Amino acid sequence: MTEPWRDPLLPVSVRVADLLERMTLEEKAGQLAGFWALPADPGTPVAPMEDDSGESAPGLDDIVAHGLGQLTRVYGTAPITAEAGMARLASLQQQVTGAGRFGIPAVAHEECLTGFMTFGATVFPAPPAWGASFDPGLVRRMAAAIGAGMRRVGVHQGLAPVLDVVRDYRWGRTEECIGEDPYLVGAIGTAYVQGLEGAGVVATLKHFAGYSASRGGRNMAPVASGPREFADVLVEPFVRALREGGARSVMNSYTDVDGVPVAADERLLTELLRGELGFSGVVVADYYAVSFLETRHGVTGSRGAAGALALTAGIDVELPTARCYGEPLTALVRSGTVPEELVDRAAERVLRQKAELGLLDPGWEPVKPEPVDLDPPENRALARLLAERSTVLLANDGTLPLRPCRVAISGPYADDPQAFLGCYSFPNHVALPGDPGLEIPTLGEALTAEGFTVTADDPDVHVLVLGDRAGMFGRGTSGEGCDAETLDLPGDQAELAAAVLDSEVPTVLVVVSGRPYALGTLAERASAVVQAFFPGEEGGTALARILSGAAEPSGRLPVSIPRQAGGQPGTYLHARLGGRTDWSSVDPTPLFPFGHGLSWTSFTCSELSVDPVAATDGAVTVSVTVRNVGEVAGTEVVQLYLSDPVASVVRPQRWLAGFARVELPPGAAARVTFAVHADRTSFTGLDLRRRVEPGEIGVAVGRSSGDLPLQGSFTLDGPVRHPGADRVLSVPVDIVPIP
Amino acid sequence: MTEPWRDPLLPVSVRVADLLERMTLEEKAGQLAGFWALPADPGTPVAPMEDDSGESAPGLDDIVAHGLGQLTRVYGTAPITAEAGMARLASLQQQVTGAGRFGIPAVAHEECLTGFMTFGATVFPAPPAWGASFDPGLVRRMAAAIGAGMRRVGVHQGLAPVLDVVRDYRWGRTEECIGEDPYLVGAIGTAYVQGLEGAGVVATLKHFAGYSASRGGRNMAPVASGPREFADVLVEPFVRALREGGARSVMNSYTDVDGVPVAADERLLTELLRGELGFSGVVVADYYAVSFLETRHGVTGSRGAAGALALTAGIDVELPTARCYGEPLTALVRSGTVPEELVDRAAERVLRQKAELGLLDPGWEPVKPEPVDLDPPENRALARLLAERSTVLLANDGTLPLRPCRVAISGPYADDPQAFLGCYSFPNHVALPGDPGLEIPTLGEALTAEGFTVTADDPDVHVLVLGDRAGMFGRGTSGEGCDAETLDLPGDQAELAAAVLDSEVPTVLVVVSGRPYALGTLAERASAVVQAFFPGEEGGTALARILSGAAEPSGRLPVSIPRQAGGQPGTYLHARLGGRTDWSSVDPTPLFPFGHGLSWTSFTCSELSVDPVAATDGAVTVSVTVRNVGEVAGTEVVQLYLSDPVASVVRPQRWLAGFARVELPPGAAARVTFAVHADRTSFTGLDLRRRVEPGEIGVAVGRSSGDLPLQGSFTLDGPVRHPGADRVLSVPVDIVPIP
Repeated sequence: MTEPWRDPLLPVSVRVADLLERMTLEEKAGQLAGFWALPADPGTPVAPMEDDSGESAPGLDDIVAHGLGQLTRVYGTAPITAEAGMARLASLQQQVTGAGRFGIPAVAHEECLTGFMTFGATVFPAPPAWGASFDPGLVRRMAAAIGAGMRRVGVHQGLAPVLDVVRDYRWGRTEECIGEDPYLVGAIGTAYVQGLEGAGVVATLKHFAGYSASRGGRNMAPVASGPREFADVLVEPFVRALREGGARSVMNSYTDVDGVPVAADERLLTELLRGELGFSGVVVADYYAVSFLETRHGVTGSRGAAGALALTAGIDVELPTARCYGEPLTALVRSGTVPEELVDRAAERVLRQKAELGLLDPGWEPVKPEPVDLDPPENRALARLLAERSTVLLANDGTLPLRPCRVAISGPYADDPQAFLGCYSFPNHVALPGDPGLEIPTLGEALTAEGFTVTADDPDVHVLVLGDRAGMFGRGTSGEGCDAETLDLPGDQAELAAAVLDSEVPTVLVVVSGRPYALGTLAERASAVVQAFFPGEEGGTALARILSGAAEPSGRLPVSIPRQAGGQPGTYLHARLGGRTDWSSVDPTPLFPFGHGLSWTSFTCSELSVDPVAATDGAVTVSVTVRNVGEVAGTEVVQLYLSDPVASVVRPQRWLAGFARVELPPGAAARVTFAVHADRTSFTGLDLRRRVEPGEIGVAVGRSSGDLPLQGSFTLDGPVRHPGADRVLSVPVDIVPIP
Repeated sequence: MTEPWRDPLLPVSVRVADLLERMTLEEKAGQLAGFWALPADPGTPVAPMEDDSGESAPGLDDIVAHGLGQLTRVYGTAPITAEAGMARLASLQQQVTGAGRFGIPAVAHEECLTGFMTFGATVFPAPPAWGASFDPGLVRRMAAAIGAGMRRVGVHQGLAPVLDVVRDYRWGRTEECIGEDPYLVGAIGTAYVQGLEGAGVVATLKHFAGYSASRGGRNMAPVASGPREFADVLVEPFVRALREGGARSVMNSYTDVDGVPVAADERLLTELLRGELGFSGVVVADYYAVSFLETRHGVTGSRGAAGALALTAGIDVELPTARCYGEPLTALVRSGTVPEELVDRAAERVLRQKAELGLLDPGWEPVKPEPVDLDPPENRALARLLAERSTVLLANDGTLPLRPCRVAISGPYADDPQAFLGCYSFPNHVALPGDPGLEIPTLGEALTAEGFTVTADDPDVHVLVLGDRAGMFGRGTSGEGCDAETLDLPGDQAELAAAVLDSEVPTVLVVVSGRPYALGTLAERASAVVQAFFPGEEGGTALARILSGAAEPSGRLPVSIPRQAGGQPGTYLHARLGGRTDWSSVDPTPLFPFGHGLSWTSFTCSELSVDPVAATDGAVTVSVTVRNVGEVAGTEVVQLYLSDPVASVVRPQRWLAGFARVELPPGAAARVTFAVHADRTSFTGLDLRRRVEPGEIGVAVGRSSGDLPLQGSFTLDGPVRHPGADRVLSVPVDIVPIP
């Protein structure tokens, strides 16, 4: 073949090298560019995050002659059917392949956090619900279903999952995060990546790294973090999702960390990500993040310089549209200011990924439009199952489950089905007025279907639904750009709740939100409190089934529920002096701790057994017996926490080291065994190297971070060890029923 | 002389070397120990911060045979007269000198933040008031007066000033800080040091470094700070106070910073403090901070190991009493675990300071008890002047100044004279019930003295006094251990204020507090708003004189007054994305910005002139004309801010570079010239080295950080420069009246 790059039988490296040889500078730069085709009709609702440059972006015609790296959100920008989207994508791909010398199609990327973010596609529960499920297998299945739909319609890459570890509940994007513990985020996030990548869709880990700790919880505000917290908390989940998930793309954080914008941070995006963590995929810019180096961070004075800085740092593709990576960047290369090798380096990564995706193959063809159901019944069933497994029963005086009766339902969003959806669902993201394009039963409809009489007259019980409405940039109370000043329930909900709780009717408080809210005085006055984190299109059904007892609320808190509205930032993962002390009048102890959640039955944990000693490169087993001592079947999430009483740096008071979701019939028991490698005690030392130290390690097992009846310890023997990037990241669990 | 160490004619180094040669290990360790003699009567009110070890401390008899480094708070622990304190100190010193082989007296240290913290001594305004004065000369005079009193009664060392830069208003110790800008803190703090050291008393810079940024504003909670913020904000004031103030002692911060407890941080306490900054004095531990390495931070497992860690890091003296530095530490030295050289190093520093203080001289004698007035009229006059110059008129619709009329006064602490005092005043610190030992006029008494009729009946104006009551560890609403969850006024003050503001009577809101509170809805309904920061014993008189117009409120805000109660942390010193943006629904813009303050007259700033170019090792002059365009004499604080539009790291949107307090008769003008060295644009670069970068620097001059009508710029030419520890830290100001 005269064009080796087209030959699928040749190694990818040979094909890409051949292409790079043939390409002009502009053609290589074209592969680093995204293009966002906005709808022609200016009245059409579109996703926010328009370029803030005040300049109109170039059209596809203007840039496509040199090829194109990525097509931005062909489906996720405006409401179109799958079939129309496929036609649009095919047409754009034909334009791309027809205009360039090489006929290389673009990578089509979409958002997919709570499902493929397009009109009519299943909206699954939001990430804190994934975390609450403590169920990586189910999250993997969800992501596989999301990926299957995307792949079916010609999408190559999904901009999920978000692996930011929650550090400040006020941040609007808390609802996009899995939780406040890096091990939980890593375990669940990795499962998501495995599902999406397993479906053939490139997963994009975001936001690498240091976004969730922005000052005051304000979106994009500077992050004050030292290198130790950064490595041990913020980066940690990415390590596992890269190694065990095999994610092929990474997106930068918008923020600066201690004054260095992540998009310009070569040490992070190249030295750490590629050098230490061995990442070989494509780093894409968060939308406008390259421009922001000039316009928001003030670390460069021009578009071209911003492009050069980001390219040098290690951002391969500018999204959503090339503003800096096109002509401004190539001009600097031509003038000798920027080495062409940097363009080659990024183009090589992009082309290698395109080769692996089959986009360089001679037989490649765009998708053929046809009707596709992006919300099939099996998706709905999955969405409902995850909604049920992620609903957390915070408190219950026996009122729940309800027998069929007369139920009054109130609350500001009780009748708004979109209140079940996160901000990265299509209906909320694009702010669809009216028709969300999906059937979303309200809680009232679902309760009626479960045999309840929903009425405001003479109710036997009052279901008070409080929480958030997700939206973008101030169009909601949760979501991107919808930050909170305090953790008071938004608006007048506290007053509303107080009025309802003053009545004689028993009240079940159902909080459907994207962040935890301070429930200090409300929770104690309610008969029961249920927390759901944007449970998705089947949220109403799932909640109704839980209220009726048809399903079990088996979620556990992936964040803490605070007692009071102030006092942020702060999560369960804190040093001893970060918690309640005699030295501060402010007690940050939460109302409901991380990991908390009740069930319809009761469990005991007993018979803790811990290997007494292991080498600093060895492992211990920790075993406990969990027993369902109630009358009905149920699910317990057995949680293992470690502590390090004496270490060379200040360690968290305890940290989640492993968990096991165990389903047990009444009276039954199981032996749960955790295999804890010494690496799970490792941390960043004074010299900023990761280390495992000899000494005593505390072990605590129980039902939440605040309910740990079983306490033990083991001793790590041997020299200080410095585990490398191949260190053990997970704690395998073995669950054996006890006959 | 057979004992060279006693010979005052020999060099200090020779005398100390001789002593070290003669001393046993225990005698050297004795010099590293403090001893806190608590009153024998357990019913006597004493200062808080008892040892939390649960073990009784050894008595002086038990330890004094080996000598003693320091006597802790002989005056500041329980209410005694100066004469009785002198007798007590003399007796303790006689015990110390009589018991040891060498007869070396102890260094007597006391607290002195808002004045010598002893019964009956003048209570001056609290540090935010010093900041608000923008008057280093007056603060220097105050500190000189404080030092004179201490020296008079035999005290050698004062545990002040606090140079922590305010980062989170919720922190109870905000009232101990000068302000939220490191240049202001450095300028005012240095003046304090000069005053105290000039009186012959050792100033102690605290808390070095990184205390004010504790998580959630909770006292002693972990500090998340990267090395850049740490160097450029938190350490910066210490650099100037060491170099230009000549402080001879430094005290550590309690906190950990990114997991490293400061008390164990050799890089900070030795490499930075001594190596880079050239400090040669004595580092003392904050009370119990050495113990806390074991009991709170968990970085060591025993007292001795905690002592070894702190000693290695660079803490020379354990305060308040030796718990780790006595026998536990010497045992580790004897066993060979800890090198004796570390004990020698610290003992040498202590003995050198004692030699310099004359404590090794043969003629040394303890103070002779006699009556001493520690609150003489000249102190009172100074206290009043500083209270007046630090009172900030936030808003005024013309109601102020008041003509003699009928005035109603209300508010929870309006009749409590101790509400004018900070938590490090003796009456509030030791929680004196009843008699504060001082005459402290209330606002009502002072207004009566100014000719007003204070009455609740038919008032012409209502003076509503809101704010804080300072106390320790939960005994107040401001002060050490009295942190806040939000910036709502404490208790029911907002409701109280709303009720008063609902009336027809014009209301003057007077906030007397230790931290800024969110005045969003209150301020706009008041006729005038006055902010004082714990103005001291003459606070009532000063406020009355300001309300009556007898004095001018010439203070300017050293912190911002927030609009809303949430959203912390956050101060004016932030990057662009740390302020209001389109990307967050939370707008952190304050109600009244840093530097704001009104006067009885009006000023204009005009005719900005800026040298266009300087070398990166040069300086520019910036000149403006300030003119009193009102009818009465007045004082303006002309403020110069710089900005760096394009830098290699993210820089604050603007930072205070210089200020000038200018008093002008009506109609008069002055030309104010700032000499701005390029070093004032320097910052910590990507490589963590300090650098001055060429390029454009923005200049803005005006009346507050939010009112900067004059804008210009200059260009720094030449190579990037890395200024050393001798860099220019201050901006000299020249004020020339315009005829």
